[in-house]
Amino acid sequence: MIRVGIIGYGYWGPRVARNFHGLNGCELSVICDRSVQSLGRAKHAFPGVSVTCDPNEVLCSPDIDAVAVITPVWTHFELAKTALQNGKHVFVEKPFTSTVAQAEELIDLAASKHLQIMVDHTFLFTGAVNKIRQLIDAGTLGGLYYYDSTRVNLGLFQHDVNVLWDLAPHDLSIMDHLISAKPDVVIATGQKHLNCHEDVAYLTIYFENSVIAHINVNWLSPVKIRTTLLGGEKKMLVWNDLEADEKVKIYDKGVDIKSGEGVYDLLVSYRSGDMWAPKIEQTEALSAEAQYFIDCIEQQQTPFNDGQSGLRVVKLLAAAEESLKCRGRAVSV
Amino acid sequence: MIRVGIIGYGYWGPRVARNFHGLNGCELSVICDRSVQSLGRAKHAFPGVSVTCDPNEVLCSPDIDAVAVITPVWTHFELAKTALQNGKHVFVEKPFTSTVAQAEELIDLAASKHLQIMVDHTFLFTGAVNKIRQLIDAGTLGGLYYYDSTRVNLGLFQHDVNVLWDLAPHDLSIMDHLISAKPDVVIATGQKHLNCHEDVAYLTIYFENSVIAHINVNWLSPVKIRTTLLGGEKKMLVWNDLEADEKVKIYDKGVDIKSGEGVYDLLVSYRSGDMWAPKIEQTEALSAEAQYFIDCIEQQQTPFNDGQSGLRVVKLLAAAEESLKCRGRAVSV
Amino acid sequence: MIRVGIIGYGYWGPRVARNFHGLNGCELSVICDRSVQSLGRAKHAFPGVSVTCDPNEVLCSPDIDAVAVITPVWTHFELAKTALQNGKHVFVEKPFTSTVAQAEELIDLAASKHLQIMVDHTFLFTGAVNKIRQLIDAGTLGGLYYYDSTRVNLGLFQHDVNVLWDLAPHDLSIMDHLISAKPDVVIATGQKHLNCHEDVAYLTIYFENSVIAHINVNWLSPVKIRTTLLGGEKKMLVWNDLEADEKVKIYDKGVDIKSGEGVYDLLVSYRSGDMWAPKIEQTEALSAEAQYFIDCIEQQQTPFNDGQSGLRVVKLLAAAEESLKCRGRAVSV
Amino acid sequence: MIRVGIIGYGYWGPRVARNFHGLNGCELSVICDRSVQSLGRAKHAFPGVSVTCDPNEVLCSPDIDAVAVITPVWTHFELAKTALQNGKHVFVEKPFTSTVAQAEELIDLAASKHLQIMVDHTFLFTGAVNKIRQLIDAGTLGGLYYYDSTRVNLGLFQHDVNVLWDLAPHDLSIMDHLISAKPDVVIATGQKHLNCHEDVAYLTIYFENSVIAHINVNWLSPVKIRTTLLGGEKKMLVWNDLEADEKVKIYDKGVDIKSGEGVYDLLVSYRSGDMWAPKIEQTEALSAEAQYFIDCIEQQQTPFNDGQSGLRVVKLLAAAEESLKCRGRAVSV
Repeated sequence: MIRVGIIGYGYWGPRVARNFHGLNGCELSVICDRSVQSLGRAKHAFPGVSVTCDPNEVLCSPDIDAVAVITPVWTHFELAKTALQNGKHVFVEKPFTSTVAQAEELIDLAASKHLQIMVDHTFLFTGAVNKIRQLIDAGTLGGLYYYDSTRVNLGLFQHDVNVLWDLAPHDLSIMDHLISAKPDVVIATGQKHLNCHEDVAYLTIYFENSVIAHINVNWLSPVKIRTTLLGGEKKMLVWNDLEADEKVKIYDKGVDIKSGEGVYDLLVSYRSGDMWAPKIEQTEALSAEAQYFIDCIEQQQTPFNDGQSGLRVVKLLAAAEESLKCRGRAVSV
Repeated sequence: MIRVGIIGYGYWGPRVARNFHGLNGCELSVICDRSVQSLGRAKHAFPGVSVTCDPNEVLCSPDIDAVAVITPVWTHFELAKTALQNGKHVFVEKPFTSTVAQAEELIDLAASKHLQIMVDHTFLFTGAVNKIRQLIDAGTLGGLYYYDSTRVNLGLFQHDVNVLWDLAPHDLSIMDHLISAKPDVVIATGQKHLNCHEDVAYLTIYFENSVIAHINVNWLSPVKIRTTLLGGEKKMLVWNDLEADEKVKIYDKGVDIKSGEGVYDLLVSYRSGDMWAPKIEQTEALSAEAQYFIDCIEQQQTPFNDGQSGLRVVKLLAAAEESLKCRGRAVSV
Repeated sequence: MIRVGIIGYGYWGPRVARNFHGLNGCELSVICDRSVQSLGRAKHAFPGVSVTCDPNEVLCSPDIDAVAVITPVWTHFELAKTALQNGKHVFVEKPFTSTVAQAEELIDLAASKHLQIMVDHTFLFTGAVNKIRQLIDAGTLGGLYYYDSTRVNLGLFQHDVNVLWDLAPHDLSIMDHLISAKPDVVIATGQKHLNCHEDVAYLTIYFENSVIAHINVNWLSPVKIRTTLLGGEKKMLVWNDLEADEKVKIYDKGVDIKSGEGVYDLLVSYRSGDMWAPKIEQTEALSAEAQYFIDCIEQQQTPFNDGQSGLRVVKLLAAAEESLKCRGRAVSV
Repeated sequence: MIRVGIIGYGYWGPRVARNFHGLNGCELSVICDRSVQSLGRAKHAFPGVSVTCDPNEVLCSPDIDAVAVITPVWTHFELAKTALQNGKHVFVEKPFTSTVAQAEELIDLAASKHLQIMVDHTFLFTGAVNKIRQLIDAGTLGGLYYYDSTRVNLGLFQHDVNVLWDLAPHDLSIMDHLISAKPDVVIATGQKHLNCHEDVAYLTIYFENSVIAHINVNWLSPVKIRTTLLGGEKKMLVWNDLEADEKVKIYDKGVDIKSGEGVYDLLVSYRSGDMWAPKIEQTEALSAEAQYFIDCIEQQQTPFNDGQSGLRVVKLLAAAEESLKCRGRAVSV
């Protein structure tokens, strides 16, 4: 039985709590938040679970095996470090840490203590991402050409980070999961309009082998868009996460170009066949992820969304942030 | 009666011919193309119009007042120059020219000869762009925050230019028409997958006053998208050019942020009201543009889509091209 | 403080329970279901509420002021009758009863006991229906021409009723709420394919003043559709309940026809102007309805969705059922 | 070489003319319309074709082999009869005739003269209907449960017929082509709002073997809808004719019901798998149909959309009209 404590009961914390609660092999023992109101909500929702406003009661408790850190990113490092030092496995909200050095220190610490780190890249546990990964692994799409995601809506404004740190981690973790090629250079542009943080940002990542990724994140869009295009040598794919059904559509479309003799003698042939929307599993991603965390702890197995996975995302975010500050200067990863 | 000759009868030429044909105050006199098949199609469609495969029969004819140059961009300069030298007004397909110097030379030549140049930025004559321009001029949107356009589909591959020169001129001319702020710096990224030309490209343009524009063009998309978001201080707008009706939707949505005392004390208030889709005129844009060209010639009036307008677009394209070749290096305009 | 007992904790009961729970002026006292598993779920969700598998513990309890009957329709009459006889107000799931006579008996009983009956026509408390009602009352649509609703999806199959009794009550109650004209004749067609109950049905209702309503309900549709068209003299409206935003769109479209001299001399003029999607309140309908029930009891006020409202829907259902059995024979209401 | 004359050059005539013009084995010889303006348009579009305002110049000309009758329905019989009497094959706009008797007389006349009649059920030549027919013939959908079509928009008002005769022939001809079961009874409801013709109508057709069809036609809809649902034993299908791509979507969805012991012991199992949108041919339907007409004449072959096909549609229309006049009285076919 893994006993879990949760630190942070704001927007996402209640969902994490609900999913750990009542999981096989897991006991939700304590919920911590500095807000009395939040603790009241927690008490109401989980009458049998202790609450506290002091994180140390979770981090230092001998009755806790694992800590879920669901707090603002700038607090992740200290909380996770203390938890690891006290021999606890950690589940950390994304993005993993504020800096690359912090991520590396936590990874080393966990390794030396034989503890697991799992970074909450929830999207990797959705039916849609699982299906896309299967299609790539099976070679259905062929070699990847590009990954192009638009993730825009009105708000939610974060006070402490810009739109890049708020929305791009989703895409960066998905991209990291789907694209086997190594990222090379990051170029980020964007603008602030309302306060000291960028509210629109555009991110390009050059990979080896001519793969390119592009991410459009925006807090000032009148409409919500969650659409990702993936272009492959053999097939192309559209993932619209806002569709109730048919989230992923695979198109038997493509272009073949053969060079002719002269520069204007290209032989272009188009391919346009059927479209196919595979059935996507509808299970709640966070529930599968929570179970996987418990399983990894029990079986002493390193999760695929471990500290290294979190670190790769933080490296890309840090590079993008640096690029953004210099109006799109290319930053190597 | 303005007598018009058309050079180039490939994909767009027939539409230009059809719209000049039968216009008040205009006579379509001659159509020129180097392809015998194209001339056959022209002969079939316009039995009363002469055809020729020699451009000089148009450019040097004493019976022609104006020449429409509807050929690949690399031929625009020589054809337009000869036409102007022979005292003819010119209507030039976009993009205006291949280089900034060419555009400037044509503008000077036309000025010295008191001739009109019109660059075929057809979108500026659509009901949708007219309506958006009215909304901006009337202050309905408030100060502009961003312009973000996605223009992607499968093909049409051009042999002589990349996706930037093929698709971005549409957005650049619209942007130039809608945004009064001056562009400052251009950053373009992209990638080649099939041949020697980029088939995906992402373009950011920083303007003065924190206005930012972003353009996503892609020849390898399985689905066709023609969507532009415009964020303003007061209202936001979505223009989906693929919708039969309701192309332009205006959202009474927004965010107000007031700084509180501390860094985390931002006071955020959202505004979410009605949506409104104004009636859009359904007239054919090219028809209105052709009539405007004839009117400008007759009234010796400089069109708003004149050589200067074409030059501004070519400057942005040239800067974007330079940036693209250096993986997103910032290029001043 | 109104003490509420709930009978029936299957699909809809938990939502009713959640909405009565913690309402101002209301105490959720007891939940009853014949299934032990359902009671287990109720116990888990509401630790402080009693549970029982005997309806009489609710119906006869001196500690209960009002009973919510959330059971299959064929049980409504007996349960509601006993509750009323025991001096309890009743909240009854739709459709109100299986027969017109049952509904009339309950109405008389409640009147003689000065008790309130509320029929759970939840849709009448949605932001969309409220907005449409306002538009009609304000004369925005002008005189109503037609109401045309499509409500189709795969399943949920009811064992005890056909698709008409399962899905049409929604539309009939909405129609009753929106259309002031009196219904005249009902024609229903449909077909059974899988078992002894019709799984597709098409319903036409003729009203006085040339108003007509049409309802398409189907349990065998591969896609879910929830779309209602309302045509008015001045404006027309589309309500798509599946849209996250912009559920209701009002079109300034219409036709005016003036008779000319001869039979072929009709003067037709079309009107096509702006479209407008008003902001719709997003509050949970069932929560507003539960509060309204409590308020009506406390203020001894007859709710607008009272037994009479339930009776009008049952009359239409009974007429439609009769028509359906005779392949569309016209049945007067 | 089949020489074709066209009578009627209003809305649809020009398209028919364009498609016969330049067809292999066909010569468009003459166009007839009583309107001088229409003839002017015809002269402009087809400089080499004769025009006349006298139908007899077409019907009696020794230089004409086939006549296309593209006029209002009430004129079809006289024109087609005269054409057949003069030994000419006829291509008749849908609906074939105004009455069943007229259709039968024309069929007999053509048979006695060994002439072909083709009724212009254009939709039967679209890629979408072809594909659906293939899917049915191949058994992909399994036994058909229902056909449910919605065909609504604002206008076009016909002066001489109601919405049933204007819009329903499309669906009736498609239905006749796709459903092999025999129609049994027709029930039609509807209403007039603006003049002496019904502007909304709802049509149910009972077939043998529990197949049911439903058609919703409306001239007063603010939005255009062209959606047909087909439910089958094995698979279900949605055809949205307004989609540019993906017009036909096939869903691996269904329900299996096995009766248990008691009335409430139904064993319901749902099936929900992939969705698949086959590639649809984009060729112009009318072009294929025109070629087929010429081929049938040359090869003395009876077209599948012959007079009998037209007659079956007219029978259904006449039954529906009779039902509509009596507020949905069931009329046997």
